Formats: sequence, C-alpha cells, structure tokens
Amino acid sequence: MKDPLVVCGCDETPQVRKLQQAVSWDVLSPPFSATFSGGDMTYCVGIMTRQGLVMASDSRTNAGYDDVNVCCKMHRFVQPGERVFTLLCSGSLSLSQSVLTLLERDFQQGKGLALAPTMYDAARVIGEQIRQVSTLDRPALERDGYRYNVHVILGGQVRGETHQLYLIYPQGNPLSAAEESPYLQIGECKYGRPILDRGIRYNRTSLEEAAKYALISIDSTMRSNVTVGPPIDLIVYGADEFQITRSRRFATDDPYWRAIQVQWEQSLRKAVQELPTVKFGEAEPLTR
Amino acid sequence: MKDPLVVCGCDETPQVRKLQQAVSWDVLSPPFSATFSGGDMTYCVGIMTRQGLVMASDSRTNAGYDDVNVCCKMHRFVQPGERVFTLLCSGSLSLSQSVLTLLERDFQQGKGLALAPTMYDAARVIGEQIRQVSTLDRPALERDGYRYNVHVILGGQVRGETHQLYLIYPQGNPLSAAEESPYLQIGECKYGRPILDRGIRYNRTSLEEAAKYALISIDSTMRSNVTVGPPIDLIVYGADEFQITRSRRFATDDPYWRAIQVQWEQSLRKAVQELPTVKFGEAEPLTR
Repeated sequence: MKDPLVVCGCDETPQVRKLQQAVSWDVLSPPFSATFSGGDMTYCVGIMTRQGLVMASDSRTNAGYDDVNVCCKMHRFVQPGERVFTLLCSGSLSLSQSVLTLLERDFQQGKGLALAPTMYDAARVIGEQIRQVSTLDRPALERDGYRYNVHVILGGQVRGETHQLYLIYPQGNPLSAAEESPYLQIGECKYGRPILDRGIRYNRTSLEEAAKYALISIDSTMRSNVTVGPPIDLIVYGADEFQITRSRRFATDDPYWRAIQVQWEQSLRKAVQELPTVKFGEAEPLTR
Repeated sequence: MKDPLVVCGCDETPQVRKLQQAVSWDVLSPPFSATFSGGDMTYCVGIMTRQGLVMASDSRTNAGYDDVNVCCKMHRFVQPGERVFTLLCSGSLSLSQSVLTLLERDFQQGKGLALAPTMYDAARVIGEQIRQVSTLDRPALERDGYRYNVHVILGGQVRGETHQLYLIYPQGNPLSAAEESPYLQIGECKYGRPILDRGIRYNRTSLEEAAKYALISIDSTMRSNVTVGPPIDLIVYGADEFQITRSRRFATDDPYWRAIQVQWEQSLRKAVQELPTVKFGEAEPLTR
C-alpha cells in the first residue's frame, strides 16, 4: 500500500491542522454538558442519485459558544480505479479524530477500508472502529456527564458494486440510503432538510443539481445556526469514476458561494410573490 | 361584557371539540415521557410587519405516535373596535386548555385580557395564568417525569398602541418580536425557519406575502415531521382594524393549499436549475 496514488485524508491546510492540535475541543463547561449532543453543532449531508454521489460539510467546530474554530469534517480514502470512500463526521472532534486515525492506520497498512469487499463491509469497518473508540473513551466521558457522540456518513464505491451511501451511528450500526430516501444528514439536520425533501429524486436529479441542493441546504442551516459555518467542503463523485476529480472548498467570500446566496434569495422572494394570493371569504362564524 | 360582539374562542367545529373531550391527550407511555418536550409536536408561527400581523398554526395533536387527533391551536379574544388578541399554543394540550379556560373566564367577566391597557400587559396576563396552571399541575407532572410545557404566541392590538407580537414562555415571562426579529415560532421550529429568514422583512413584506410565507413555512414543517399536520388555521390582521375579518382554515384537500404546494415545489426546482453550475478547477492537491 505504498502506491503514491493511494491517498487518504482531508484537504485541510497545515494552518488548520495546527489549530486543531492547539485547541482542547472537548472541554465543555458543565452547564452545556448535560444537554450538549455535539451532533447539533455541525452539518454534513450526503446525496445519492443514479448518477453518483454528492458529499458536503461545514467546517465549524466549537467547544462552547466562545471557543469556535475551523476544522475539516470531510475525509477520503482512495485507491484509484479500485475504491473511493468519502467520510463526513459529526459529534465530538476528539472521538471522530480517533476513529479516523485508526481507520487511516489500517488503510495505510492495507487493512480495514483497503480490504473491504463491499460498501456494506466498509460501513462495518467504520462501525467497528467507532466501537473500538467507544471502548477506549466512553466510560470516562459518561462518568463526567458527556454523551458518546460520533456519527459518520460514508459515501463511495468499491469495484464490482454500484456507488452507495451509509450513515454509521455512535453504536456502530450502519444505515443505508435508498432510492426512496436518497440523502442522509448528520448534525444540525432540520433547517436544511425541507429543500432536500422538495428537490432530491434518485432517478431524476442530476449530480450538478444535487450539488446545488447540498450547498443551499448548508446555506439555509448556516443562516439559522451560528454553530454551522464556512468554509464549506464539497465533493461530487460520478458513478464508476473510482477517483475524486471534483472537489471544492468554498470560503465565506468565494464569488460562486456569494452568487448562489444572492440569486437563491431573490428567486425565493420572486417565487413567493408569484404564488396565488390567499382568498378569504366572508368572515366565518365563530362556534362559541 | 355581555355584548354579543365580544367573542372569544376558536373556529373549531363541534365535532373537533367532541373529539378533544374524548381523548386523554397527556397520557404518554413512559418511554416517551423522559425526552418528550411537547412543544416539538406542533408548529405555530406569528409574523409582524409594518402592515399588521399574520398568525398560523397546524392542528395535529398527539399523545404518542399512535394517538393522533385534530385540535385547533388558535384562539381569539376580541372587543371590536377596542382590542384584538390572537393566541397560538403549543405544549401539553391539557395545560394550554387550562390556561385558555382561565383566560376566557376572566375575559367574559370583563377582567384579565378585557382590561389589559397595553399588549405588554396582555402578555403579562397570559404569563400569570401560565404560572397559575403551573402551581396547579407542575408538581404532579414532574413527579411522574413530565416537563411542564406550554408556550403561547400572542399577536394583536389594544387601542392607543400599535399592533404587537409576543411569545410567553412556560415560566410566564414574555418576549417581544422586533423589527429586526419580526417573527416568532413555537413547537417544531427548525424546518420552517429558513424560508422566514430569507423572506420576512418588517418594513418591506406585505401582509399578503407574509401569509404566503407562513403557509410555506408550515408546509415545509409538515413534510418533514408527521406530528405537524392539517388543517391549517390562518389569520391576517391589518394594523388598526380592531376586528378579525380575514381568517381561513385549510384542510388537506383545500384547492388553494394544493395549488401553492405544487407551484412552490415547481418554483424551487426551477430556481435550483437556474443557479450557476458549480465549477471545479483542476483536482486540488491533497496535503497529506
């Protein structure tokens, strides 16, 4: 597995990584810990259509309201021509880092994700590492009132199969997306869901459209929840490509990002104006 | 206060009221009670613009997944020409019923909301009744693991003041909407919030537009959460009208309701298609 084409990791800059190491991410002050689920302070979405996969994530990480930083939540494991996995993570950063470190170590040694014969098996490999980290850290976390929280979305393809999309829970069990449920979310899911429900259809939505839906879904979430923030990472994977050629990071001032924000808001206002006006008949009688 | 023009109550049919009485709304099976907040199983929104108020609510009530019914969550207290209050309620139905019963009893006797000299005082009257019911019921609820949960949105106008919008918490304290925060939500708020954030502006949004935003916000919530459901109640109140002349109930098969659902979804898809396509440069180098 020393092939230089075998890559795993995240497109993060060295600066970001340095920042990551410098911050104690999991130190939540006690008033937060009782209700803090961790998963609500991130937003990641994976979309599966007949044409392929779209994966997108925000990059804001925080340990309390006054300790906010940038950290890439998107990670890839690639053997070009053979297998492509993209992972999106939410929850405690310390836990997802441990899971990824164990996955990367195995992958570099030709084990784990490097050997999984199917996407289902790859999801199980991730689930096993989530359970491994649970064994390591859960008792100490729960003793101090923290929940063991790490969720992973896995999108990708293993040669011999179609592309697939999974969500792996903190307990390690995997859930697969389906034609009728063609997207999966982790973290702060609700703000960004209506636009996906309205628009994503497995058989009809093109990858280009799915990418736009993912970006709008994240933008809607960022507007309503300050714990979700830029930069935004995006990967578009076409079925049977077996490599990642389309990936982008959008900073706050990215011209494309700004353009879709402005155009989207204008389109929504116009769409509302064009809806038929509500008609009221005579005032209805009150029954009491 | 025997003036026949003094009205309070809800536009519900006798059938609905009968149903209400027949069901034990608060009997949640124990597995639900620990995490059940009540407020997540309703959606009500009040919008305040320079032109007036829009109030809207769903009508689904449930005590567990298998005990779902219809109940109006919108209530009005009117002295034509003098004062108009519309109340939207979320939380435990038994609690909000008690609050309303106490408010109605006082109103009919020319006390409470019938006397409040300002909207702020009206919000305080409601808060006092919420605290009164808390004194009556909270200890017994908490002994069995239920949270005391009742939220009220109050919109209206008292002669001599401008129209206003308040949210009253289960603790009885009131929060006012403002020009910069011109809408208030209770219950399952997140799905329906992005469209309001994009569209509602105190100075620019007309009442007709605000009504459409409210309906779309509720429709977005219904699509994603089965505990929010039709019929939908809507009131549009123009500043200084001091009576309610525009109210509607939309059933699932209401032709207008169906029309805006279909047209809205079509408009969203078209708006996504018209967004600029995401451009990817050369594959960016991986840093590790």
